[in-house]
This record gives sequence, C-alpha cells and structure tokens, in this order.
Amino acid sequence: MIVNRNLNWRHILFYTWKSLLYFFILSVIVYTLHHEFDMEKLTVPFNVIALLSTALAIFLGFKNNSAYDRWWEARKIWGLLVNYSRAWGREVLTLSQEPDGIPSEELTAWRERLIYRHIAFVHALRVFLRHPHDYNENGEDLIEAPNDYADIRPFLSQEEADEVLSKHNPPNQLLLIQGQELQEAYQRGWLSDFRFVQMGETLTEFNNHQGKSERIKNTPFPRPYSFFSRVFVYLHGTLVPLAFVEELGLFNIPLALLINFIFLSLDQIGEMTEDPFENRPSDTPLTSISVTIEGNLKEMLGEKEIPPKPVVTGGVVL
Amino acid sequence: MIVNRNLNWRHILFYTWKSLLYFFILSVIVYTLHHEFDMEKLTVPFNVIALLSTALAIFLGFKNNSAYDRWWEARKIWGLLVNYSRAWGREVLTLSQEPDGIPSEELTAWRERLIYRHIAFVHALRVFLRHPHDYNENGEDLIEAPNDYADIRPFLSQEEADEVLSKHNPPNQLLLIQGQELQEAYQRGWLSDFRFVQMGETLTEFNNHQGKSERIKNTPFPRPYSFFSRVFVYLHGTLVPLAFVEELGLFNIPLALLINFIFLSLDQIGEMTEDPFENRPSDTPLTSISVTIEGNLKEMLGEKEIPPKPVVTGGVVL
Amino acid sequence: MIVNRNLNWRHILFYTWKSLLYFFILSVIVYTLHHEFDMEKLTVPFNVIALLSTALAIFLGFKNNSAYDRWWEARKIWGLLVNYSRAWGREVLTLSQEPDGIPSEELTAWRERLIYRHIAFVHALRVFLRHPHDYNENGEDLIEAPNDYADIRPFLSQEEADEVLSKHNPPNQLLLIQGQELQEAYQRGWLSDFRFVQMGETLTEFNNHQGKSERIKNTPFPRPYSFFSRVFVYLHGTLVPLAFVEELGLFNIPLALLINFIFLSLDQIGEMTEDPFENRPSDTPLTSISVTIEGNLKEMLGEKEIPPKPVVTGGVVL
Amino acid sequence: MIVNRNLNWRHILFYTWKSLLYFFILSVIVYTLHHEFDMEKLTVPFNVIALLSTALAIFLGFKNNSAYDRWWEARKIWGLLVNYSRAWGREVLTLSQEPDGIPSEELTAWRERLIYRHIAFVHALRVFLRHPHDYNENGEDLIEAPNDYADIRPFLSQEEADEVLSKHNPPNQLLLIQGQELQEAYQRGWLSDFRFVQMGETLTEFNNHQGKSERIKNTPFPRPYSFFSRVFVYLHGTLVPLAFVEELGLFNIPLALLINFIFLSLDQIGEMTEDPFENRPSDTPLTSISVTIEGNLKEMLGEKEIPPKPVVTGGVVL
Amino acid sequence: MIVNRNLNWRHILFYTWKSLLYFFILSVIVYTLHHEFDMEKLTVPFNVIALLSTALAIFLGFKNNSAYDRWWEARKIWGLLVNYSRAWGREVLTLSQEPDGIPSEELTAWRERLIYRHIAFVHALRVFLRHPHDYNENGEDLIEAPNDYADIRPFLSQEEADEVLSKHNPPNQLLLIQGQELQEAYQRGWLSDFRFVQMGETLTEFNNHQGKSERIKNTPFPRPYSFFSRVFVYLHGTLVPLAFVEELGLFNIPLALLINFIFLSLDQIGEMTEDPFENRPSDTPLTSISVTIEGNLKEMLGEKEIPPKPVVTGGVVL
Repeated sequence: MIVNRNLNWRHILFYTWKSLLYFFILSVIVYTLHHEFDMEKLTVPFNVIALLSTALAIFLGFKNNSAYDRWWEARKIWGLLVNYSRAWGREVLTLSQEPDGIPSEELTAWRERLIYRHIAFVHALRVFLRHPHDYNENGEDLIEAPNDYADIRPFLSQEEADEVLSKHNPPNQLLLIQGQELQEAYQRGWLSDFRFVQMGETLTEFNNHQGKSERIKNTPFPRPYSFFSRVFVYLHGTLVPLAFVEELGLFNIPLALLINFIFLSLDQIGEMTEDPFENRPSDTPLTSISVTIEGNLKEMLGEKEIPPKPVVTGGVVL
Repeated sequence: MIVNRNLNWRHILFYTWKSLLYFFILSVIVYTLHHEFDMEKLTVPFNVIALLSTALAIFLGFKNNSAYDRWWEARKIWGLLVNYSRAWGREVLTLSQEPDGIPSEELTAWRERLIYRHIAFVHALRVFLRHPHDYNENGEDLIEAPNDYADIRPFLSQEEADEVLSKHNPPNQLLLIQGQELQEAYQRGWLSDFRFVQMGETLTEFNNHQGKSERIKNTPFPRPYSFFSRVFVYLHGTLVPLAFVEELGLFNIPLALLINFIFLSLDQIGEMTEDPFENRPSDTPLTSISVTIEGNLKEMLGEKEIPPKPVVTGGVVL
Repeated sequence: MIVNRNLNWRHILFYTWKSLLYFFILSVIVYTLHHEFDMEKLTVPFNVIALLSTALAIFLGFKNNSAYDRWWEARKIWGLLVNYSRAWGREVLTLSQEPDGIPSEELTAWRERLIYRHIAFVHALRVFLRHPHDYNENGEDLIEAPNDYADIRPFLSQEEADEVLSKHNPPNQLLLIQGQELQEAYQRGWLSDFRFVQMGETLTEFNNHQGKSERIKNTPFPRPYSFFSRVFVYLHGTLVPLAFVEELGLFNIPLALLINFIFLSLDQIGEMTEDPFENRPSDTPLTSISVTIEGNLKEMLGEKEIPPKPVVTGGVVL
Repeated sequence: MIVNRNLNWRHILFYTWKSLLYFFILSVIVYTLHHEFDMEKLTVPFNVIALLSTALAIFLGFKNNSAYDRWWEARKIWGLLVNYSRAWGREVLTLSQEPDGIPSEELTAWRERLIYRHIAFVHALRVFLRHPHDYNENGEDLIEAPNDYADIRPFLSQEEADEVLSKHNPPNQLLLIQGQELQEAYQRGWLSDFRFVQMGETLTEFNNHQGKSERIKNTPFPRPYSFFSRVFVYLHGTLVPLAFVEELGLFNIPLALLINFIFLSLDQIGEMTEDPFENRPSDTPLTSISVTIEGNLKEMLGEKEIPPKPVVTGGVVL
Repeated sequence: MIVNRNLNWRHILFYTWKSLLYFFILSVIVYTLHHEFDMEKLTVPFNVIALLSTALAIFLGFKNNSAYDRWWEARKIWGLLVNYSRAWGREVLTLSQEPDGIPSEELTAWRERLIYRHIAFVHALRVFLRHPHDYNENGEDLIEAPNDYADIRPFLSQEEADEVLSKHNPPNQLLLIQGQELQEAYQRGWLSDFRFVQMGETLTEFNNHQGKSERIKNTPFPRPYSFFSRVFVYLHGTLVPLAFVEELGLFNIPLALLINFIFLSLDQIGEMTEDPFENRPSDTPLTSISVTIEGNLKEMLGEKEIPPKPVVTGGVVL
C-alpha cells in the first residue's frame, strides 16, 4: 500500500516507459513522414478519435472501478480478520474456565496455545496468498516483501509446524487443529456445549476470510476485459498522433505523448490495483496487518514485547 | 476461466468473424458505390453518429458492468461453497463425539460418509449447473468440459447413488439425506441438540449456495438489454462507414472495420461473461473448484491421495 | 421473464408504436415545412442537441441501471424463497421427532401439513404480488398469467383456506398459523426448545421474503425520475429532426426516426424492467418459481406426482 | 411518495419557478444587448459549454444516483421494520406460554401489551423522524403530513405514555420497556432462557431500524456535493444563452430556457429525493407504512377493526 | 460534517486559492504572450482538450463516487455503533438478574460499570481515530476538534483508566475488560450460559465497529488514483487557457479560470470527503455521535443530567 500523497516518478516510469517509448517513436515517425516526406494524406480525421475516446474513457472508468472494488474488498477481508482475531482472543480468554473459576495451569497453557496458533494462521495465510501465480507474468518488480513459511514456526511446536507445513493447505490445517482443541476443551469441561459451538463459529469466520482471500487471489479480473482495455489503449493511441500532425507540426510530438500518457496511466493504475496480493507496492498491506494482529493478541495475553509496526519505507507499507 | 494475460486471436475471431465479415463487405460496398459509381449523396453527417456513439458507449458500459457483476457473483457463491465445505469438514470431525470421548468405528464411518456425501453434493451441483439450456442457442463451442453425473458415484454407495440420481434435483436430495443422518447422530447421542441444529444451519448454507447458483443459471441477463445492445451495435456500425467515406476514400475500409471491431468486442465480452455456467472458456471454473474442495476434505480426513489440480490448458481453467 | 435471445418485433412495436408514429409525423411535417414551404429558419444547431443528448444518455443509463437492480433484487428475493423453502422442508422432516425416534402418525400428518401450508404460502404470495395497482395504468397487455387465490386451496383444509382468505394479508396469516403449529409441536415434545426457536427463525426469513417483495411491489421507481426521463426523451426527440433537415433532406425522416427509436427503446426497456410483478412478459417468473418450490417439496415428501415445469411459450416464462 | 405516473406541472413549477425566471430574464437581457445594442462580442464559443456540460451531466448523474440510493435505503429500512414487526407479532403470540399450555389472562394481557407497545414504537419513530431540522431551510411546502406524538397515546397506558414522552428519545425508551417486560416474562416462566434471548434479538433489529433511519435523517448528503451541483448548474446555465444568441436570435430565448430547465430538473429531482423524511410529497411513505403495520398486528391479534389504508390524494401517499 | 446548505466561500478559497492563483497567472501569461508579443502559434486546438476533458470528467466522477462511499461507510459504521450501544444498554439492564429477581447492590454497580465503560469505549475510539497520520500532510486546518484521551477518565476508575491508557490499543483493551466482567457475572449466576454468550456477541459487534473504522482510517483511497486525478486536473487545466485565447482575447482569463475552478472543485470535494476521520469540517461527526450515545445510555440508566448535543457552529457539526 502506497501511503505517500505524491507518487515517485521513478515508479511511474518503471511501469510505463516501454509504452511511452513506443508512442514517442511513433510520433516522431509520423511527424517525419508528414512534414519531411510530404505524405500529407497520412492523417485521420479527429472525429474518428473522438468517437473512440469517449468509449475508451468509459471502459477505463469501468475497469478502474472494478479494480478498486477488488482492492477494497481484499482490504475489507483482512479488516474482518483483524476484528475477529481480537474477538477470538477475547473469547479464548473469557469463555473458557475451570468449574471452580480459577484457571489451572493446563487451561492457561491451552489459552496461550490457541492464541499463538491463531497468530500462526494469520502469518501462514499471508505467505499462502503472496505466492505468485506463473500465469501472472509479473516480471521483476520494484520491491519484494519477504514471505516465508518459516515465519509461522515461532508460534507452533516443532512437531506441529512440521505436520502443518507438509499439507497442501497449511492455514486450513491450522483451523482444523483449533477445532480439535475446542473439542478437547469441551470434553475437559472448560467450555459448555454452547460456548464450544460459539467458538467454532468464530473459526468458520476464519474459514471465510481465508476462502475469500483465495478467491481474489485465484480469480483474475476477467482477462478479456484487461486484454481489450490494453489493446484499445494502443489502437486509440496509435491514431492520436495522426489526428493533429497537420495542425500542430513539431508540437504534435509532446501533445500526443501527453494524451497517450494519460490514457496509459488510467489503464496502468487499474492493472496495478486489481491484484492486491502480488508482492507489489500497491498491494494490500498484509505484512503490516499481520504484525498488528500479532501485537494486539500479545497485548491481550499481557505480554510486554510487542512487535513494532513495520516502518514506512519509500512511502510504501507492505 | 481464462488465466492467460493475452487472449488467443483465434478465440476472438471465433466469436466475431461473422460480424466482421458483414462490416467488411458493407465498407467495400459503400466505397464502391461512392467512389466508383459516384453516389456522392451516400453519406451520413458525422454528428448523427456522434449522437449515437456516446449513448452506445454508455449502454455497453452498463452491460459490461452487469455482466461482470453476474460473473463475479457466481464466483463468490462458489467461493462460499469452498469456505463452508471446509467448515463442514471441521464440524463433522470435531462436533460429533461418543459420550466417552473415544470415537467408535460407527462414528468414524458416519464422519467419513458425511464428508464423502458432501463431495458428491459439490460434484452433483457442478453437473447440474453445466447442463445447457435450449434457449441459449450456444451453438458449437471451442472447448467442452466433461460434466457427467457418473462423477458422483465414487463418493456414494451404489444404492444411494441410484436413488439420488432418480430425482429431479439430485443435489437437494443429497442435502436432505445429510439432514437425516444428522438426526440419526442426534438420536445416537453423537450430537447434542445444539450441535445438531448448528450443523443443520451449515446445510442451510449449502441450500443457499445451490439456490443462488441456480438463480444465475436460470435467469438470463434481461433479454431486452442483450438484444438491444446487439441491435444498437449493428445499427451504429452500419452508419459508421457512411460517415468517413468521403474524407478517407479507400482508407475508410480499415478504419471503419477498426471502429466496429472495438464496439463489437465491447458487446461480445459482456455476452461471454454474463452466463458463467455454460461450458465455455470464460466460465466460472467449477471443475477446478470442485477438485479443490475434494482435495481439502480428503486432506482433512487424513487421506494421502489428493486429486491433482486440473492443468491449465490453452490458458484456460475450467 | 423473456428467455428467447431475439425479441419479437411485434412486442417491441406494441410498446412503442404510438411514440414512433408521433416522431414520424413530426419528421414529415418538418421536412414539408422546410423543403416545400421554404421555412429555412426552422432548424436547430446540432450543438444544442449534442449538449442534451450526452445528459440524456447518462440519465437513461442511470434509469436502466436502477431498473435492472430492482428486477434483479426481485429475482434474488424469490431465489432466497426457493432456498429457504427447501431448508424448511428439510427442517420439518429432520428436526421434529418422537421421543422414541419412531415418527407417529400424528407427527407424520403434522410434517405434511407444515410443508403443504408452506406451498400454499408461496402461491398466496405470488397471487398477492401480481394484483395490479390502479395507479400503474398498465392498460391492456400482451400476456396475462392466471393468478387466483383458488390456487392455494388444494394445500389447505377447507376451513383454514376460508379463514386465511378472509384476511387482508393472507400470506402473513399463513405464517402465523405455522408459528402456532410449531408451538404445539413444542408442547407435544416433537421439538426441543432450541429447535422450536430455530424453525421460528426460518419463518422470520419468510417474513422477510414477503415484506421485501411487497416493498418492490408497492414502491414504484421514484416517479419524478420516470416522468422526467420520458419528458426528456420527447423534448430531445422533437429537436432531432430539426437538426439535420437542412443537410439530409428526405433522408432526414428515416434517420431521425432511427435515432429516436434508439433513445425511446432505452427508456422503454427500463420502464418494462423496473416493475417486476405486473403480469407482463418481462416479469420475474413467479409462477415458474412457485411450481419449482412445489415440486421440490413434494419430492422431499417422497411423492411421485411432481407438477411439470411451465412450458416456455412465445419465448416467455411467467 | 408520488405514485401517479404523471407529475403535476404545478408541483414542478413550485420548486423551479424562481430559477426559471432568472434564466428567462437573463436570456432576454442577452438577446437585447446582443441584437438591439449590437454588443456582438457578447458570446461564448459553444466549445466552452460543451466542455462543461459533459462534466455537469456526469456530476448530476452521480448526484441522482446517490440521492436515489438514500431514498431507497430509507424505504428498505422501513420495509425491514414491516417484516420484523410481523415477526414480532408472531413471536409474542407463539413463543410465550404458560407451563400447562393454556394461556392465562395475565399472559394474554402481556401479549397484547407487547404488541400494542410496538405499534406505539412505530408511530413514535415516524413522528421522531419527521421533525424538521432547522438547517434544512425547507421553507413552506406543498403538503404537510400530520405527525404528532399524541398518535402514540392510544397504544399505551396514560402513565407510560407520559413517562416515555418526557425522554429525549421516546422510541428508544419504548424498546427498553419491551426488554424489561421480556425479563419479567422470563421470571414468570412464560419464556425459556433461549426464547427470552431470541426475542431480545428481535428488539435489537428494531434498534437497528431506528438507528439507521436516524442516520439518514441526521446526515445530509454531503453539502459540498449539493452546493457545487447547484452552483455548477447556475454557472453553466448562465453561459448557455451566450452560446447560441448569434445563430438563433429570438429563438434563443425558449431554447436556452429549455436546456436550462432540463439541467435544473435533474438537479432538483436529486435534491427532493435525497432527504426522505422531510414531510414532502417525495418522502418515504412513513404514515402509510405505520398504518400497514398497525393493521397487520391488529389482524394477528384477531381484532376486527383494522385501520383503513391512507387514501392516495393528489397522486401522493405519505 | 457540514450542515449548512450554503458553503462558506472563505472555506472554499482556503482549499483552492493556491491552485486558482496558478491558473490565473498562467492565463495572464498566455494572454500577454499571445496578444502582446504576437506569439500566435501558442494555441492548442480545442479538440485536444475535448478528448481529455471527457476522460477527466469520468475519472473525477469515479473519484467522487468512491470518496462518497468511504464517507458514507464511515457514517454507517458509527451508526451501527449507536444502534448496538443502545442494544448493549438494554441487554446489560435486562439480561442480567439475581436468581430471586431482585437486583442486589452489587449487580446494580456491575450494570452501571458496564454501561459507563462502554461510554469510555466510544470516546476512546473517537480519540484513537482522530489522531492524524504523518503521511497525510494535512497542514493547518480551519477547525480543530478537541480529542483527548482524558475524555474517557470520567467513565472509569482511576486505576483502570491508567491501565487502559498504557496500552497500544486502548479501545480493544476496554472490550477485553468487558468480556472479563461478563465471565464474572456468569460465575456469580447473574447471567445464564446462553445470555453470557449473547452479550459476548454484542462485544464482537463493537470489535467490528472499531476494526472497520480503523480500516478506513489507515487505508487511504489508493494514492495512484488521488495523485493522477490531481496531475490530470493540472495538465488539463494548463491546456485550457491555450484553447480559447485566440477567439476570446482578454475574456479568456475569467473563462479559463471558471472552467478550471469547476474541475478543481470536483477534485477537491472528493479529496476532502475521502478521509472522514481527519479533524476537518467535512469529517464524520464523531464528537456529536459520541455525545448522543453518552446521552442515550445515561437516559437508559435513569440519570437526569444528559450532556447537551454539540451546538452547530459555523454550519459545522464535529
């Protein structure tokens, strides 16, 4: 997530320089052919472009809107994960009890285990989501967040960590183990039937948060829309220098570049925003949120060492 | 679901070649009549088209937006099915228990049966949804996913499978049997009253996932909207070559084709996206999701043989 | 609900012929005055129209969007009714039981009664919703679905049907009776306290489905929006033939008619879609959904005679 | 709520005559200065206006969309109030019971009291919401619905009514008393623990309906949007007569007025719709809905005297 | 929240004067170069601007729409906090009870403590949310609401307040303490198992309200969108005076300023609205809502001294 109000122009050019180069060369060629080689028929009436650019602007509006919705939905899901993590902490600490009201050592250990395992779940989900898909062809990127399953080991026993990481879907396995621990607590009398089921429902919330995140991760914005918006921008952009070359002469080069830069950016912003779990500056800040959850839960356990919030570097929070 | 960033031009032409041919022939005729037979009055002022094309662009924007919403809703429903399938697995394994805490053989068999029947439900729902409607006139298509009720037999007893498949609505029948098994478990003391009802509510979630999918399947995007957008694109497209023929001469043919290609595509993308359960490359990937659920549940049962994820072929996941 | 991909032109003209006639006569008069009587000042600059037509297109976009939302919401509500009807059937059959586990005759009769009364509720709600409002001035229509309270009699005792139909709001009365039957089942020990309340919550779902349908039925899309969109289309349409009459001569008549036909249709589609319970071809298919629910529930009761799905006639499902 | 398909032109002029007069005088002045005093430079190129009118149309589209959303949300909230009021009636009548199953006189009185108090709550909420805010400066209006707290007295004892009306927030006080009555019923054994909590949750629904209505009432559509849309319409409208005065002469006056009337109406409709609780013809029909709820509940109590639905007067339901 | 229908021009200029000055100087320079120094080539064809301004208007429409959605969501969250605070008050007062039905002194103190602590939670959340982020660079502002953690002290014991304020996340700590008090009440027999869990669920609602507010606070509207809309407005605005300078002469200066003022405002309104917790006039009125909740809860406790609603000053409620 980018937090600085002003973007870094280096970042912008990183993603657009190839296209801008194409449009620059194109403009120069058009100018040269037109003014130096007197190919005066090499123009397109402005009306042709006007007809396309309204349609293009509306289409890009739709794309940006949808991209933003995906991004915001991703953030909402992880927001819910924050809320229910805190609720989970509260439930673990206040719904379970010994019959006589005084928590035994075993119960205290159980409580801590359930909260620590939840921290492991959150970190595991982050790592799971940030694993790149081959077909996204992201290429090299500006920034990379370290996302490694080793991050969950401090919160689990050696044995349990090994078992969980041997599974295809480690976060789901962690939720199953939480369910088994609840059953045990019920059998030991720490939870009533009703409170047992209630805490199981909170686990179902986590099933939802995981599944919803996976949905966004695994379902790209329909490729036909992305593909056509790119094709559309290029077709339109290729006609642009042909429209004003007569009237503007040399001035046509910067102006055509300016117009194309704007349409390109509108397309590019959507492209960056629509996939929020790809290890990029515009990502949903999973790392930061995971650390917040870890800190909140540790604070609820009464621990003193709270992990510090990730520093904003280069205007980016990951 | 198409996952490749670049569409295959063969696919695009597969859906648009007839219309493009019409517009090509039209442009050639217009050019010939105009320049060869000197029918100079055969033009339409650009303003007429400008007036229509803004309205058309806005209407196509609305159509694409709604089509995307339908597609995304379908994906969301199947996402929920993933989440609650995992929750179902956890509930079956952790909410049921023998009074003495040690699972009997019968209980273990019951647990396995409920999880396997749920896998059957998911596959049955997929097959049910992918059955084509006559009135959709899809014609032949590029790709076909195999969807056959035989897929559910491995997860049910011979007898039960026969009974279920004799019904008009097999998935609903499976949910009823699940309910009957819960009742039995309650009578045997494996479930408390409260946990019995709780698991029934999870079944109600599956009723919702099934019914919501059926709604999208059985309710096409209002035909008047689809029909008019097609008619509108053709009427507009027929006027386009008449607008620039004077000014552009032979150049009018490719340009008119380009403009019409863009409007056609905008219409066609929506058309492909709006029906997500029709055995087409742009479908919601029901097969892949079904296999994911099967794998997750088998992993939760501790099985070692997990079905492999379907391979991406030709950039498409089904 | 119209399911044919191609609309019938007879239907389209049924709703638009009066307006088209007006615009045709107008165009002829404008042409005659202009070219025969040399009233050359009788033109409007195209720019005036351009200024209005973008605003009009955006406004019609908003109207169509909202109309579609209403139509889709109506379909969603009836979709939920399908889902919870199936859940209701499952709950009636599996949550109620005799203490010894073997259903008595009385319990079996009770189960059947609750399911049959629910079928009556669904049909009653359909009839209730399809009763036309005076102020809608629908005039005669192409198609009429038979909707008569007599349809609910087969599912109720004579006595109960008479009582229910004497009320202002029969569907609500049916839900109250369902609640009373639940109370009785609780008193007889067929339902535990918890399952009693759970089934009451399912009834609350039906309260919601009924009330939400009534909301759409009784609350027209704000009349100022509908009224102005119609006025706006006419004002704009009246200016259209004046804009091109000079340039186009006799050709102006078909072109102006074409442009007006498009804007008229955009307005008319919204008008047809926004009220989904009015006995019209574009209605939400209440009859078809009611029969589906009836069939599903009868199948769950193990009955053999399932009512057949309504046939698609003229491309329309009601 | 306006139900007539055609608006009354008197209503329309009531809200727009001042602005129309301004634009009329402006057009006349422009014409006079231009044609009589030969101030030929007093024009603005059409392009300046074209640039603004697209932006204005989009902005008004956004405003109308948001206004409609507010209006529809208000209607949805009151729709939920209808649904849960019926559910409340059913719950009061079927969840409470004497241990022996035969309702005592005291229980019957309690049931009636809870239902009557709920009718009082609905009317109190209506009156509470229709109290105008000073800062809305509505000025005089065409219609006024009578909304007086005296309306709740028939449904409460003298004493209770006095107490409730002495509070800052009478509807909230009524819900608190309902809660206290539930507690008493629990202590008397009419409600089990579980049914007691269940009915408390229904009260929480009413807390939500009240609070959501208050939110819409107390939070105007962000003033900067409303204010700028008005300013924008005036600035744009002031330029309009300057654009065509040269070309159109005297004809400019009606045409400029027509264009401005359309933009003004688009702004004005939003303005009317965005505040649905202000005692105006376009209000959400709180009075009518309150009477519907009162009638439904009385019918459920078996009463014979049901209040008649308010008559539609002048095409308006309040 | 601004409640006055007319904005103060001083406020508007406060946020836009720098940009307006830039555009003014630019217009003057353009005019001077063009008319005084005869640089007649210093123009841009209007079509270039037309091409950009439609895209810009659509983009600003998207931005304003999203900004409004954020603002309205913030208001909705705090609306829910109002509703559930009242429900909390009712639950505390009516769900807890002594076995004999007569509230002991201890129970009365417990009830008061839970309600007062909730008031502290609301105020703490307000203060927490209004703490400005460094990276927002808000600069000095017109108005500042006093938001200080000292505001929560009157509702907590000295000791508890000290403990809570020593935490990183005071509101979350307050919810944990509420959970511990519920557990104690359960152990003392004031709450049944079921009512204990029910009240814990209400605490989970507060977890949600807090977390959702934090989400909006900590996640700015994606910076690329904000940044490009600003850049886009400036680029477009810089071209505007070049388009009409030839035609309009000196008149070009006010007209270009007018056009730019309109696009600037459209951008600026969104900018102000998108962050609703920043101590600005356009904020969600957290202070006012907090005081409303405090008053409602005190009224429910039967107290006589209700804090007065904050006065509207300068048309603003904070």
